[in-house]
Amino acid sequence: MSDRAFPQPQDAAAIPRYAGLPTFMRLPMLTDPTQVDIALVGVPFDGGTTNRAGARHGPREMRNASAFMRKIHHVTGVAPYDRARVADLGDSPVNPIDLMDSLRLITEFFDGLKQGGCIPITAGGDHLISLPILRALAADGPVGMIHFDAHSDTNDRYFGDNLYTHGTPFRRAVEEGLLDPKRVVQIGIRGSIYDPSDLDFARAAGFRVIFIEEFIKRTAEDIIAEARDIVGAGRTYVSFDVDSIDPAQAPGTGTPEIGGFSTFEAQRMVRGLAGLDIIGADVVEVSPPFDVSNMTSLLGATLMFELLCVIAAGIKG
Amino acid sequence: MSDRAFPQPQDAAAIPRYAGLPTFMRLPMLTDPTQVDIALVGVPFDGGTTNRAGARHGPREMRNASAFMRKIHHVTGVAPYDRARVADLGDSPVNPIDLMDSLRLITEFFDGLKQGGCIPITAGGDHLISLPILRALAADGPVGMIHFDAHSDTNDRYFGDNLYTHGTPFRRAVEEGLLDPKRVVQIGIRGSIYDPSDLDFARAAGFRVIFIEEFIKRTAEDIIAEARDIVGAGRTYVSFDVDSIDPAQAPGTGTPEIGGFSTFEAQRMVRGLAGLDIIGADVVEVSPPFDVSNMTSLLGATLMFELLCVIAAGIKG
Amino acid sequence: MSDRAFPQPQDAAAIPRYAGLPTFMRLPMLTDPTQVDIALVGVPFDGGTTNRAGARHGPREMRNASAFMRKIHHVTGVAPYDRARVADLGDSPVNPIDLMDSLRLITEFFDGLKQGGCIPITAGGDHLISLPILRALAADGPVGMIHFDAHSDTNDRYFGDNLYTHGTPFRRAVEEGLLDPKRVVQIGIRGSIYDPSDLDFARAAGFRVIFIEEFIKRTAEDIIAEARDIVGAGRTYVSFDVDSIDPAQAPGTGTPEIGGFSTFEAQRMVRGLAGLDIIGADVVEVSPPFDVSNMTSLLGATLMFELLCVIAAGIKG
Amino acid sequence: MSDRAFPQPQDAAAIPRYAGLPTFMRLPMLTDPTQVDIALVGVPFDGGTTNRAGARHGPREMRNASAFMRKIHHVTGVAPYDRARVADLGDSPVNPIDLMDSLRLITEFFDGLKQGGCIPITAGGDHLISLPILRALAADGPVGMIHFDAHSDTNDRYFGDNLYTHGTPFRRAVEEGLLDPKRVVQIGIRGSIYDPSDLDFARAAGFRVIFIEEFIKRTAEDIIAEARDIVGAGRTYVSFDVDSIDPAQAPGTGTPEIGGFSTFEAQRMVRGLAGLDIIGADVVEVSPPFDVSNMTSLLGATLMFELLCVIAAGIKG
Amino acid sequence: MSDRAFPQPQDAAAIPRYAGLPTFMRLPMLTDPTQVDIALVGVPFDGGTTNRAGARHGPREMRNASAFMRKIHHVTGVAPYDRARVADLGDSPVNPIDLMDSLRLITEFFDGLKQGGCIPITAGGDHLISLPILRALAADGPVGMIHFDAHSDTNDRYFGDNLYTHGTPFRRAVEEGLLDPKRVVQIGIRGSIYDPSDLDFARAAGFRVIFIEEFIKRTAEDIIAEARDIVGAGRTYVSFDVDSIDPAQAPGTGTPEIGGFSTFEAQRMVRGLAGLDIIGADVVEVSPPFDVSNMTSLLGATLMFELLCVIAAGIKG
Amino acid sequence: MSDRAFPQPQDAAAIPRYAGLPTFMRLPMLTDPTQVDIALVGVPFDGGTTNRAGARHGPREMRNASAFMRKIHHVTGVAPYDRARVADLGDSPVNPIDLMDSLRLITEFFDGLKQGGCIPITAGGDHLISLPILRALAADGPVGMIHFDAHSDTNDRYFGDNLYTHGTPFRRAVEEGLLDPKRVVQIGIRGSIYDPSDLDFARAAGFRVIFIEEFIKRTAEDIIAEARDIVGAGRTYVSFDVDSIDPAQAPGTGTPEIGGFSTFEAQRMVRGLAGLDIIGADVVEVSPPFDVSNMTSLLGATLMFELLCVIAAGIKG
Repeated sequence: MSDRAFPQPQDAAAIPRYAGLPTFMRLPMLTDPTQVDIALVGVPFDGGTTNRAGARHGPREMRNASAFMRKIHHVTGVAPYDRARVADLGDSPVNPIDLMDSLRLITEFFDGLKQGGCIPITAGGDHLISLPILRALAADGPVGMIHFDAHSDTNDRYFGDNLYTHGTPFRRAVEEGLLDPKRVVQIGIRGSIYDPSDLDFARAAGFRVIFIEEFIKRTAEDIIAEARDIVGAGRTYVSFDVDSIDPAQAPGTGTPEIGGFSTFEAQRMVRGLAGLDIIGADVVEVSPPFDVSNMTSLLGATLMFELLCVIAAGIKG
Repeated sequence: MSDRAFPQPQDAAAIPRYAGLPTFMRLPMLTDPTQVDIALVGVPFDGGTTNRAGARHGPREMRNASAFMRKIHHVTGVAPYDRARVADLGDSPVNPIDLMDSLRLITEFFDGLKQGGCIPITAGGDHLISLPILRALAADGPVGMIHFDAHSDTNDRYFGDNLYTHGTPFRRAVEEGLLDPKRVVQIGIRGSIYDPSDLDFARAAGFRVIFIEEFIKRTAEDIIAEARDIVGAGRTYVSFDVDSIDPAQAPGTGTPEIGGFSTFEAQRMVRGLAGLDIIGADVVEVSPPFDVSNMTSLLGATLMFELLCVIAAGIKG
Repeated sequence: MSDRAFPQPQDAAAIPRYAGLPTFMRLPMLTDPTQVDIALVGVPFDGGTTNRAGARHGPREMRNASAFMRKIHHVTGVAPYDRARVADLGDSPVNPIDLMDSLRLITEFFDGLKQGGCIPITAGGDHLISLPILRALAADGPVGMIHFDAHSDTNDRYFGDNLYTHGTPFRRAVEEGLLDPKRVVQIGIRGSIYDPSDLDFARAAGFRVIFIEEFIKRTAEDIIAEARDIVGAGRTYVSFDVDSIDPAQAPGTGTPEIGGFSTFEAQRMVRGLAGLDIIGADVVEVSPPFDVSNMTSLLGATLMFELLCVIAAGIKG
Repeated sequence: MSDRAFPQPQDAAAIPRYAGLPTFMRLPMLTDPTQVDIALVGVPFDGGTTNRAGARHGPREMRNASAFMRKIHHVTGVAPYDRARVADLGDSPVNPIDLMDSLRLITEFFDGLKQGGCIPITAGGDHLISLPILRALAADGPVGMIHFDAHSDTNDRYFGDNLYTHGTPFRRAVEEGLLDPKRVVQIGIRGSIYDPSDLDFARAAGFRVIFIEEFIKRTAEDIIAEARDIVGAGRTYVSFDVDSIDPAQAPGTGTPEIGGFSTFEAQRMVRGLAGLDIIGADVVEVSPPFDVSNMTSLLGATLMFELLCVIAAGIKG
Repeated sequence: MSDRAFPQPQDAAAIPRYAGLPTFMRLPMLTDPTQVDIALVGVPFDGGTTNRAGARHGPREMRNASAFMRKIHHVTGVAPYDRARVADLGDSPVNPIDLMDSLRLITEFFDGLKQGGCIPITAGGDHLISLPILRALAADGPVGMIHFDAHSDTNDRYFGDNLYTHGTPFRRAVEEGLLDPKRVVQIGIRGSIYDPSDLDFARAAGFRVIFIEEFIKRTAEDIIAEARDIVGAGRTYVSFDVDSIDPAQAPGTGTPEIGGFSTFEAQRMVRGLAGLDIIGADVVEVSPPFDVSNMTSLLGATLMFELLCVIAAGIKG
Repeated sequence: MSDRAFPQPQDAAAIPRYAGLPTFMRLPMLTDPTQVDIALVGVPFDGGTTNRAGARHGPREMRNASAFMRKIHHVTGVAPYDRARVADLGDSPVNPIDLMDSLRLITEFFDGLKQGGCIPITAGGDHLISLPILRALAADGPVGMIHFDAHSDTNDRYFGDNLYTHGTPFRRAVEEGLLDPKRVVQIGIRGSIYDPSDLDFARAAGFRVIFIEEFIKRTAEDIIAEARDIVGAGRTYVSFDVDSIDPAQAPGTGTPEIGGFSTFEAQRMVRGLAGLDIIGADVVEVSPPFDVSNMTSLLGATLMFELLCVIAAGIKG
């Protein structure tokens, strides 16, 4: 590790945090994935949204809010920029008026990151983007997943025959052999449903579905311990939909459901992922047009920093 | 029940949830109360407000937000539209510049619903509207009440000699024989008071007043179990003032008091009402001009759906 | 005309304007186009948007704002609901995740209106919706068009090979024989361009393009007189993109360009259309998530009322 | 005048303009009307509002915004605090839940000011407040009025038999002998109407009604010259409804109508009132809950300052 | 105490709470500190802010929001205005463009209050203002402090050599002998840090630092019991930075950190301070330009009321 | 010029305009001023603000909004990126808590740009930043200035003895020999003043002060023709304070004054500067915390593009 450059955030005591260019965490913007261990990237696409759009603006506003992040985790003491080479690798190309083309472009972009040998932490975009990301990252075989969400996102079709929406990515991912359903856990599920069978696919496939009603009776630490058991030592993807969190703390999202877990519980759960073999992670469904005082963007950026510290701690220097 | 029509919400997979006309829960708008078991209605009146008005806009925005509701309760499995005939029966006539005339119009409207044989779930409006509703629904004799609120709403007079404001409805209801005070429980009371005697009426009358300080030491389930004991098997009205909930989760209200219970506690308490003899319910004091990102309207609409599922479960098909 | 029912708006002196269901102009919601002369409809689709989405919410918010409209035009004295049968005919079906399917659904919906014999006034939606509307209304042969916009919307392709976006509808309409380019006038064009050839298509086709720089030197009355000459007595479509208006008066739109004409100039121009053979009209690109104090929705609803009065005046009773 | 105290605004170079207590123009708060020549007061009442309320918050926010006002008029050079004794005399008592009681309280308050010998400049409140103000100020006989508004406010009744709303004050004022209709001019009238006869009362009574369509063809200076002719040398009241101004410049109001005159035209018209015998003035219908960035409150406060300079210039030192 | 005047808030049943002048708690504005036991004051200064400014507007908006406070504490029954002479003593002079001059002016102002014999409860302003306040109040010797905050505020320098920012006040206060570090407790600390040594000063000096991670495992009552032990019977200052609270409940602040304690926990902790020898208190970092629906101002005003009740209870009548 | 690289904006048909990193105009970010002819830079400093701060956030939000700009001017046909090497050169270092240090840092930064041979177009920041910019750019001798503003900004001192605020830069600039007062024109001046002598310095020095009252009687073209005469062929600085524009079109500013000129007049005036010897330009006082729907940031970014086209047109290729 000695002869590699470790990118560092801009110094906030020289350039104020509200100034300069809003890259993720105020890190340098690089283009070559071989120069980094962890890539912070955006996927500004919300074409899979069936209700209120706006998550296409997530990457820009999470970059803005990430300027609030400092350099070291106050609990674990992890200094991610000393342990790993981390940089902003920009946004995936997308096509705002062509869903299928966007899926292709996103997979290509993440395939490039994977070939470059870096682990991506992604700012979405709506939840459909997890599918093309998994197509790249899980191309070699199914992975496990820890999935925070108010919704299972395993519906079959919408509006007739449409297979690809932000309500279907994980059904497709199972069908395409990208996810090992026995190693999938969904945390925070709640809200009224369309049909009694809505959750049948997830259960039949073998997902562990933890409803908020169960969550509230246990602790965040307890939940995450079970999740660790489920995904085990294998390769694991982490997908964080901010609508899993209570809408008072995450108002800027397209499909809010009241009664979610708290940001602090979210932080503690993410911290509990340390030591897992995380091959990538995303924070999705931050929709700035519906946000207030940039609260949800700040939340998204903080979760990206928490994920970064967990993943960086696992990098072998 | 076999030959009656069961109105169904618009299909969200055909007409997107943000489209079409925003009736409550995307149900048909009907005018004949004899065709429904449960009537979803609005009372767009805030003339009883002594501080910040705006609850007159509550029905429209709760209708808008109710488009987020799907068809089946994810915990109880209740499918309200299969068990009961439910429809939007529109707004009660009101007179925005004449309080006494409005009280008369509202009572007439709810008397019509009662004569039609349906149970109303009402979107307010300020809390004064519960009085004319009770005048209709409790015309045959006093009822019990489960009342969620930051305030007792049992003051005597305001601004000299005014008997009718959103701070006085339940004192009037007791005086008029509409409420059986021994069967009334108030949950979530808090906030500074004008006078040491402010709560004397409620206590003297026999209300059970549960302050937030007591609430926080117990669980929502425990609180609601006590409430069930208090109201017993008799006819019971449910009145939900959204200012009972913490202002961070319910900012769109006229008289916020910090330190309330959570939306999730509210949901669990409403779910705990199953099996009671509920003759009507309201969700009041949603004030859209002070709301942010429609958070409080969504909360109000979700509570209406929770109430609907509880009441529908009790309908004998 | 004697034996046909003339739908009337709800009486605002009985039901306050903020109450009741927000149909267009508080008119009845009907489903049979043969019962109306003029149909007020929505197309809640913004899948053609290349930048900031949100116009899918335009129909709902323009309906809300249309409650401010009263019954008679204060300048012309036209009483549209006495001269024509006008009603809200709901929203066109759309598919938020499938652009090509949406184009098909929209054309079908407007074909139904046309077959029913009514003239549609449409609340968009992004500007791409004008194309499928024209496919229905101009199926019998090319029509003229008076087009208010900051942008010519005659680009060729976006993001590689995509033919259908909100920047291309009128190029497609010419290519498909829906518009007679010699009878097309564009008013209010401005803003930086991608390429010197951006406006070549419009000019080569024969559109009359009136830039804001020319507009400002003339009067609204003068401009519209020329527009009337251009479209003549033939069948004419009116398309009003609210970004033609200055962003201070129409902030709720996806692609604002400073320096537009005023709402009052817009009103006077629309009034100047009286007597033309208008086969349909739309008000598009109202994007409520970017609006402030519902200003742009009010503007859109008012322009729909102005269009309604002009078209109703031409109905032969 | 030599031995009387001339209250002065707080010094902005010592206490920043955003600091200190927000009295009108940062002037001292006094209670004795005999100590001032001009009284700046509030009437925080909107109970006459038939649509969107909120003007009750007008006085507080106009006081806040008035901190932007400095001491001397930049065009006329008038230094109002050197020419007249001016102070904040607080808010009129009102009763938010009792319209008739409020009318009585307001008249009493203004009668006190009149008896004290000062000229009131009032921040409303909805437009109904002009009626009880006139009952005090015009108790000795009818006065003339220059009235800026989008609406004539001369309707007869609302919601059945209600005589007193913000749509009726000037019909009542004529009937009660408070206004001399031949000396009334209304400027800026526009917007759709309920009935062809809506403006019959005003015209029959002899009001001069200047629609926006006429206004736009003339200049502000020309309009105000005619208005001066109409009211002549007699006692005159000035009533400024901010909805006369275009909603883009005055969004914070309850009944916006697009296509109004500009703030700068408003300023020039108010300046043109110099030399008239103004017995009082109001700025009404500023509704902060619907405002954006306090734009309308700033406008209201600036118009109060303009009125103050005009009236102070007429004070005989 | 018998012959001293006890100022009382305006009567909300006569003057509505949204009306009148927004002094703190609607109390009289006085200027002589010898006439009061407890002074409610503002320090409208945010020149020490290194990131997002706006706290200069805190005093005005907390005054506005304090109109929601009534007269008696609902839990303790304390009637502060009967036990102590309380009034609004206005804002400290400040110089928005000169930090060092502002420090001087603030110390002078608080020295005046101290000489007058009253206890100040201060609405900030950014957190730097606690330093000049302590220079006045602790001039006679070091005091203890209970400090609620997400940040320790014990950094050394910023931007080169700048000693005075809102991140440094308590390091300076220790260095200047104003704080007894063994009697200082910090509650709620969290968020990423710049350097592993960021908290070394606080710990080395002897502060008790309670991170949110420890907090969440204990109760508010338990935490405050420990805090009472630490500060003991000696003179104690209370400093409440609203960013200690979760940003969903306190969005209007300059440096939000997700995952804070709740407003209700804050209330209970403040109530737990009863009986301590409190020489002054502040509520800082309320930044209205970033607030939503005045939520944070209401929180700040409520905490001032809670502090007032605690301090008034300790006044010997 | 043949062998120099001409930076180009990101292609909006490949990367959507809301995606990617928000540099000015989506141009590359460079650090070497010798590689560019025109440098787009930010000065994120508002420490000279005497009232409402927030302009420190101007550069970031103007960069965001500049993504709306395309490549070619639609009126003049100027293609700035073909004529000149243009890039984003980042933000000047500033010290948010030390005004004098900031003045030094800003002058250093602009001196670097000047030495590098490029012309800076600057996004402020408050208006004080024009002083340190002029200290760099006019180091060789006084320059002329075309100054758009509601305020003359030639006050002497504030808050006692403070020479440097956003109300004093041009008095200082004259005193320091940076401005040739005979070649200075101020356009749009208005608003109440503190003292009759407020404008004496400007007039005595020889500035041409054009009040809005004069402006409105002439045309933008006529005004700018006079301005050209005044500054002549000599080196000229252009300073655009957005508060010169009407607050309805530029609400996001710290010291709004109603009744300004329009954005379109601003555009036409800037276009009228073609051919002058412009050595630099700034757009200042954009204050995003007070903006609505990013309207003022869009305005600021568009004016930067207009200035860019004018300056690029003068570059000798």
